[in-house]
Formats: sequence, structure tokens, C-alpha cells
Amino acid sequence: MTISLYKSSVPIFVQFLTGLSGVLDKAAAFAEARKVEPSVLLNTRLAPDMFPLVRQVRAATDHAVNACGRLAGVELPKFENDETTIPQLKDRIAKTIEFLKTLKPAQIDGNEDKEIKIVFPSGATREFTGQSLLLNNSLPNFYFHCTTAYDILRLCGIEIGKRDFMGTPVSL
Amino acid sequence: MTISLYKSSVPIFVQFLTGLSGVLDKAAAFAEARKVEPSVLLNTRLAPDMFPLVRQVRAATDHAVNACGRLAGVELPKFENDETTIPQLKDRIAKTIEFLKTLKPAQIDGNEDKEIKIVFPSGATREFTGQSLLLNNSLPNFYFHCTTAYDILRLCGIEIGKRDFMGTPVSL
Repeated sequence: MTISLYKSSVPIFVQFLTGLSGVLDKAAAFAEARKVEPSVLLNTRLAPDMFPLVRQVRAATDHAVNACGRLAGVELPKFENDETTIPQLKDRIAKTIEFLKTLKPAQIDGNEDKEIKIVFPSGATREFTGQSLLLNNSLPNFYFHCTTAYDILRLCGIEIGKRDFMGTPVSL
Repeated sequence: MTISLYKSSVPIFVQFLTGLSGVLDKAAAFAEARKVEPSVLLNTRLAPDMFPLVRQVRAATDHAVNACGRLAGVELPKFENDETTIPQLKDRIAKTIEFLKTLKPAQIDGNEDKEIKIVFPSGATREFTGQSLLLNNSLPNFYFHCTTAYDILRLCGIEIGKRDFMGTPVSL
């Protein structure tokens, strides 16, 4: 018995992206109740040289899309990266989940040792296997950005708890 | 081809715990350079009802120890939970890594479907398979606490970057 690459990726990303979307609902409700501009929340960051909330959410979706799309070897959906509101960010998460759900286990399983070369905007390249891309890079980065989005909102006083972050396991 | 449960757990926890230990080194250097009591950092939290840094680090080690120990079916090492200094926290991380390294792939692989029942201090119980414990619970919680420890230190102005968080993949 071993773990499938599909089960280690798609359902996990969907679970935590759904959690993140729920966290944003609570942020929107907080902003409305307190008469705070939601953009204040979206532009909050923990340190001057860290991403603000809006980019933490974008980065989380990017890691999910890029990991699963590359494992499956399909074209990666592109986002405009112009979201400025909570509904727009929630829409980006929904589109990400929709894309992930189009991927079938047969497209992903078996690609553990597939060589995946990533060319960064700087021109630098990094080579991974399917497994190392997911385990050593995509999942940790994904969790980093989901957690930091949550942490920013906790710092802002939004009433969210660990359960919101964790979401609910999905059957896929 | 599939991913092994061992490779999805032990080397990953070791990589990010080593990163966390390095992050604490930079926190200690910051405290010394700025003449700040390290306990100020250890007691910083992002919100009044979140764990301070010291407990984020303890929780990260607990999730690593509990996940791998339960997957392997061995006795879980106990910590006193009385750390009050950065060297003590680094020692806890080192002991965790030492424990993880005693576990062999043969003790963990094959336990994907093993039923694992966890009894919480409250008396509540939760049932997992080996795979669901690792993927849906332990890894996300582990990353949550490692990231929040990092985020607390970023908020405090420590000069750390994503590379410190990511650590270096280990061959185990």
C-alpha cells in the first residue's frame, strides 16, 4: 500500500481552499459589521516586505493550480491578478477549485518520477520530480500562504479559529 | 508508482523542523543584537487567543512526533513542555528530529489504511486512517504552526525570508 499522488494533492488543495474561502466570508462580514473598507484588510501585511492578504490568497491558488496542472501535464489556467475585492478573491478560489476538479486521478497518478522543470520569471530554472514538486515545494508553499492569510486576519481581529483554517476533508 | 507514506512524512518533517531551528537562530541573534529579552519574542502572539511563539514551536514538534510515532506504532516520546528559552526550544526540535530519524521506512510504509484512534485530553476521540491522519491532519497542522512561528517573528522584525522557512530537502 502506498499513497496516491492524486489523493495527496487535489482533494487536499480543495479542502484548504474551501477553508480559505470561508475565512474570507468571515473577513467580509467583519468589515461590514465594523464599517471597515475590505480593502484595508486586503492590503494588510505582517511586515513591509511580506505580501499583503490579497497576494497571500493569490499565491495559495497559484501553488495549487501550478502543482496539479504540472503533475497532470495540462495547460495552466491564467489569472489576471487584478483582484481588489473579497468577492473577486473568492471567485479566484472558486475557479481554482473548479480547475482542480477537472483533473482525474489517472492524469496525476503515475507521475511521481516525472521530470518537471520550472522556469521562473527571472530566467532561473529548477528541476523537480512530480513527488518532490508536490511534497517539498507546492504543499509547503500552499500551506504557508493559507496560514499567513489566516494569520493576517487574526491580527486584524477577525473571529476565526483553527477549524475555519482546516476546512472539511472532501471525497474526490 | 505511488508515493511512500514514509517519504511523505519523516523527511518532510525533518526538512521543515531544521528550517524552524534556523529561524530560531536568527531570532536569538536579533534579540542579542537589539538587547531584547528573548522571552519577549517567545511570548509574542498574533492575537490574544492564539498561541505565543513558544507554543507554536511546541505544537509543530508535537504534530511531527505524534504523526510519525502513530504511523509507526511506537511509543511517543514525551516532552515536559517547560521550555522558556530559545536554546531549550532548539533542543526540543533536535530531540524531535532525532526521534524521527530512528523510524525506518518499513515501520511506516504499509500503514496507509491502518486505523488510528486518537483520544484527546477532553475525552473526545477521532478516528483516522494512517493516510488521512498524515494528509488531512498532521501535515496541515504542522505547517500551520511552523508558518505562524515564522509569521510572529516577521511581525517582530526578525530578518528572515521564505528560504529560511523552506529549509533544505533531506535524503532519508
